Amino acid sequence: MDKHALIVGGAGFIGSQLAKVLLSLDYQVTVIDNFSRGKSEYLEKCTTNTRFKILNFNVAEASQCENAFLEAKLNGKVTEVWHLAANSDIPAGVLNPDIDLRDTFLTTFEILKAMKKFKIKVLNFASSSAIYGDFGDEMIHESIGPLLPISNYGAMKLASEAQISAACEGFLKRANIFRFPNVVGVPATHGVILDFINKLLLNKNELQVLGNGTQQKAYLHVSDLIDAMLLISNQQIDSKVEVINIGPFDKGVTVKWIAQEVVNKINPSAKIVYGVGNKGWVGDVPKFNYSVEKLKSLGWSPILGSEKAVKRAINEIIIQLGL
Amino acid sequence: MDKHALIVGGAGFIGSQLAKVLLSLDYQVTVIDNFSRGKSEYLEKCTTNTRFKILNFNVAEASQCENAFLEAKLNGKVTEVWHLAANSDIPAGVLNPDIDLRDTFLTTFEILKAMKKFKIKVLNFASSSAIYGDFGDEMIHESIGPLLPISNYGAMKLASEAQISAACEGFLKRANIFRFPNVVGVPATHGVILDFINKLLLNKNELQVLGNGTQQKAYLHVSDLIDAMLLISNQQIDSKVEVINIGPFDKGVTVKWIAQEVVNKINPSAKIVYGVGNKGWVGDVPKFNYSVEKLKSLGWSPILGSEKAVKRAINEIIIQLGL
Repeated sequence: MDKHALIVGGAGFIGSQLAKVLLSLDYQVTVIDNFSRGKSEYLEKCTTNTRFKILNFNVAEASQCENAFLEAKLNGKVTEVWHLAANSDIPAGVLNPDIDLRDTFLTTFEILKAMKKFKIKVLNFASSSAIYGDFGDEMIHESIGPLLPISNYGAMKLASEAQISAACEGFLKRANIFRFPNVVGVPATHGVILDFINKLLLNKNELQVLGNGTQQKAYLHVSDLIDAMLLISNQQIDSKVEVINIGPFDKGVTVKWIAQEVVNKINPSAKIVYGVGNKGWVGDVPKFNYSVEKLKSLGWSPILGSEKAVKRAINEIIIQLGL
Repeated sequence: MDKHALIVGGAGFIGSQLAKVLLSLDYQVTVIDNFSRGKSEYLEKCTTNTRFKILNFNVAEASQCENAFLEAKLNGKVTEVWHLAANSDIPAGVLNPDIDLRDTFLTTFEILKAMKKFKIKVLNFASSSAIYGDFGDEMIHESIGPLLPISNYGAMKLASEAQISAACEGFLKRANIFRFPNVVGVPATHGVILDFINKLLLNKNELQVLGNGTQQKAYLHVSDLIDAMLLISNQQIDSKVEVINIGPFDKGVTVKWIAQEVVNKINPSAKIVYGVGNKGWVGDVPKFNYSVEKLKSLGWSPILGSEKAVKRAINEIIIQLGL
């Protein structure tokens, strides 16, 4: 049977890149997006492909979700779903948890109901390292607990994982739960690099940084992320659920370093002004020892480490913004 | 300040017993229940107490939840919330996940929003061993992972834990997450003992058991459960969230043993007919090594082990049903 991937949130940052890669691998690709953060222009290069279709639905609504899956089916039996829809604006979710409930969790919940109804058995899910919460200096591997996320975003990603796991007992044949690190690249819709560049465009002489800049995180380039996901989803495993941390193999870079890199590119004479404390916002995790031993054991390795991924992303975003 | 406990789901099995205990400890007690499974008659003995109030609201609805908290406040500032509301019918949730979403998760979600609004800082939450899923022979302690529940019930309990954890970062001062074992006693509203007795009342000569009866689980009597929760909630801890397995110290009893005990009491000549497989239903966990080392380390121990708890509960339920 031909492979037909349904990408929910497919007009977003990672989804739109995934659509291009899957098309290049001869998949039929249907994108569903509600275009709250995603944009159809991110998929411009796909629209000429006869194997590509784009649908506008909000899958957090039960009836819209069902209609979306009905329409997707018109393009042929869907063989796998990629669920990448979420509220990617973490601070917004802290202020109003209803956003994360709707965009991050209820999307998962309704997608699962639709997959049951339409007998689609394979789900690939974009989870997050945010489900772990703050383990201090401890290595964060997949079998650590208890899971105590400190943002509503992380909470709703963990809630989604839980519901997917239960669905594997019921009707799914296979679910891959990818725990994403910070991902950089284009089309950038959010994240620290875009924030810094936008701030410098408003005031080219000063860059205000949230927190004292010592927060250190690992960054993966979107091209490496997609490469890893495809490898994981294609492996044969015994269990129905695969849960796996994805990230580069290094310890990451500090916010300070990123700020300096951005300033160097945009206006080297700009002053960087730091805030107080080692958290950028409520729900930010200051330090993070993210274990990717399981991913390594599959023989995968990234092309770019954190430093190179961030540097490349800065250049790509500068081009994206037409600077 | 006087202690004022708001018990959500307080007209249910555990909630109604908790209300009685807290009243005996001189708490002000307000019960909120939607009476879908709870019954006001379970609280008959409380209603003469001037420190007791009972309210009928469905807290899964945002506006009703807010109104419930507003009314509770008329009885004095609420100092702690006990959230015991949930869909306790696991198989029903497997058939229709919307039930677990609404009754088990959205109750938590809306309660947290109301606690933020009304500045109530302490939450005690009835979670479940079902959040762990099936770890086979492995010891299930609080720091095990990944958490892959195999029922929607377990999934929505884990989702609730996640949202509570995020709320601790935001506005809660303390949350106690109690991971319940199987709890027995009266007023029984569900569970294996009540099921068996009800089946024998319909057909006194034959007891049909779901699964082959080899499922072994630990059972705690509700009186011991409440004792443990009060001890945990009163301890001083450094972190804002306490996650703890509650259970007896033994390995539990089999479904077969319970069936035999019930038959002995109701009709010793009844035939017990077993099903196939070691799961009673989709989402049932056949075997379970539940670690209560953390609870032990607090100096707590149960009065009744699994055997005595089940035997006492059988007698209590027989009286409850007027047999």
